[in-house]
Amino acid sequence: MVQEKDVIAVIGAGSWGTALAMVLADNGHTVRLWSHNENQVKEINDEHTNKKYLPGISLPKLITGYASLSDALIGVEMVILAVPTKAIREVIGKMRAVMKNPITLTHVSKGIEPDTLLRITEIIQEEMPSELLKDIVVLSGPSHAEEVSLRQPTTVTVSSENMAAAEVVQDLFINNYFRVYTNPDVIGVEIGGALKNIIALAAGITDGLGFGDNAKAALITRGLAEIARLGTKMGANPLTFLGLTGIGDLIVTCTSVHSRNWRAGNLLGKGKTLDEVLENMGMVVEGVRTTKAAYQLAKKYDVKMPITFALYDVLFNGKTTKDAVDGLMGRAKTHEMEDLVNILGERNL
Amino acid sequence: MVQEKDVIAVIGAGSWGTALAMVLADNGHTVRLWSHNENQVKEINDEHTNKKYLPGISLPKLITGYASLSDALIGVEMVILAVPTKAIREVIGKMRAVMKNPITLTHVSKGIEPDTLLRITEIIQEEMPSELLKDIVVLSGPSHAEEVSLRQPTTVTVSSENMAAAEVVQDLFINNYFRVYTNPDVIGVEIGGALKNIIALAAGITDGLGFGDNAKAALITRGLAEIARLGTKMGANPLTFLGLTGIGDLIVTCTSVHSRNWRAGNLLGKGKTLDEVLENMGMVVEGVRTTKAAYQLAKKYDVKMPITFALYDVLFNGKTTKDAVDGLMGRAKTHEMEDLVNILGERNL
Repeated sequence: MVQEKDVIAVIGAGSWGTALAMVLADNGHTVRLWSHNENQVKEINDEHTNKKYLPGISLPKLITGYASLSDALIGVEMVILAVPTKAIREVIGKMRAVMKNPITLTHVSKGIEPDTLLRITEIIQEEMPSELLKDIVVLSGPSHAEEVSLRQPTTVTVSSENMAAAEVVQDLFINNYFRVYTNPDVIGVEIGGALKNIIALAAGITDGLGFGDNAKAALITRGLAEIARLGTKMGANPLTFLGLTGIGDLIVTCTSVHSRNWRAGNLLGKGKTLDEVLENMGMVVEGVRTTKAAYQLAKKYDVKMPITFALYDVLFNGKTTKDAVDGLMGRAKTHEMEDLVNILGERNL
Repeated sequence: MVQEKDVIAVIGAGSWGTALAMVLADNGHTVRLWSHNENQVKEINDEHTNKKYLPGISLPKLITGYASLSDALIGVEMVILAVPTKAIREVIGKMRAVMKNPITLTHVSKGIEPDTLLRITEIIQEEMPSELLKDIVVLSGPSHAEEVSLRQPTTVTVSSENMAAAEVVQDLFINNYFRVYTNPDVIGVEIGGALKNIIALAAGITDGLGFGDNAKAALITRGLAEIARLGTKMGANPLTFLGLTGIGDLIVTCTSVHSRNWRAGNLLGKGKTLDEVLENMGMVVEGVRTTKAAYQLAKKYDVKMPITFALYDVLFNGKTTKDAVDGLMGRAKTHEMEDLVNILGERNL
């Protein structure tokens, strides 16, 4: 029989929250999986399934569904926050209203808040009083939830300003199919995950224009270079972009034709306007929002991001994708890593 | 009419040599394209095609085929060497026998010589007397020749110990569909291009085992991390692996299912032995040779390369691919960039 270890609350029972709850349960932890949807909680407890998000998967018995946030959090010191980025402020507001003791909060969200330009860790710090928050940890990396729920080999990175907290979270999750690395660079880990959707959108465009592997590899590589420049200017370690939350997550995002961002880009490349694309998709395309945020960040930090700026002009200023590509290919000659090296030099001053 | 600029010799009329000759001709240079095959030279001059290597493509009139190495090199100061890695020593031996003046030599080959463990630049330095060699430049990056011959957007990097020479080569090639970056890190550029085939082979294995996108992204990312560790120990700048000749070339190689390395790995993943795979393929699989060279380099430089070592055991010691994956996933916990950071620290001593 599996030994019962610490009790862990997972807030959010979408596909990623549920898959992470399964990893924790496989490692012998008792998991309280909270959802705002009472029918879903009933299904989790009665059927041991979460069919809407992970069809065909049986949940381990150590997972219990909770509809009450207060019940889910009582006495718990370790919380995994797995809600959509847009819902974070609201959910943390509800959490702090019922919490009785400080927690270590591990978030698994990706994004930059529009207008405030805050990273997820910064949003959490704004919303959660410091006396209720021991540490914030971020878990990120190339990971389709469906594959994790099938126990296929997966690697992720955990990061925190307090590395001891990151190592505790590493210990909770690591097992023979879910390999967890640590990295002290919170900014780099969060920026890589947040900005990858810009490049997925642009990759869809080059495919839509009928270009080949050379163009796509160029786009991914030079796109990552400009994300690394921005992140480094914001304080990240450029080597983080060489890792799982940088190039790793980018590869998964840009090579999956099921990605919404890729599909939106593909339609843009074929000559549709943004309005036509959004109407056609009938749903939010994260990369569109992220492109605006990255454009604002690049202005704020005075960093050159030619791909982001070209994409911004296509999305919001009516530039054709063909003109955008011609503009990118016709720029002045540059040294591959010059700007990044300069930024590193400035930071040492 | 296009103005005639410098005369440039391209030695080797395979798909890549021919595509590069086309870029140079598009930029107004007179190109002498040498091949050891007289029929091919006749076809280039009479039909303006090179059907075996670039079917369906018309060659610009500024390209002339040469069957005589001596004629092709006479009076020329800029030479592009585009022959298979294994033929480099032999071809340079023939060149030095007929050369009358020193040249700048740009090579476009990828590989590490077995047993000597030399990079291409080092092989050239051994074979070509220094009084005949002004500078060596390497041109590398994510570039299928077929796409270049169709003038699709492509990006590459040129590198040299003498950056002025690299900038001259950048000027020769750059145009609105072929964007050329410079990078002073010759070692990093050559190591990235040489070792990518190891990871392509391993990527085929994970696909053959039925694993998904998470496993493949993990493999590419952690594979690049160990190549970066080795390269950095050899003197490279780790940021080069974030660039076109690192992650860029790797993406093109690992996501093309037409790659021989991927196909060989796929068969290994499905349970075939190396002998069966090589018999089935009926041709050389570069990644097999490269794995042995990387294994020897890792021993020589005392660098941890767990994926390379696991692949070596599968190829040469009869380890099953399943055991190799279990071994990789079950290793001790690590910090994502710890070893690389340590290597950088050692080098600063």
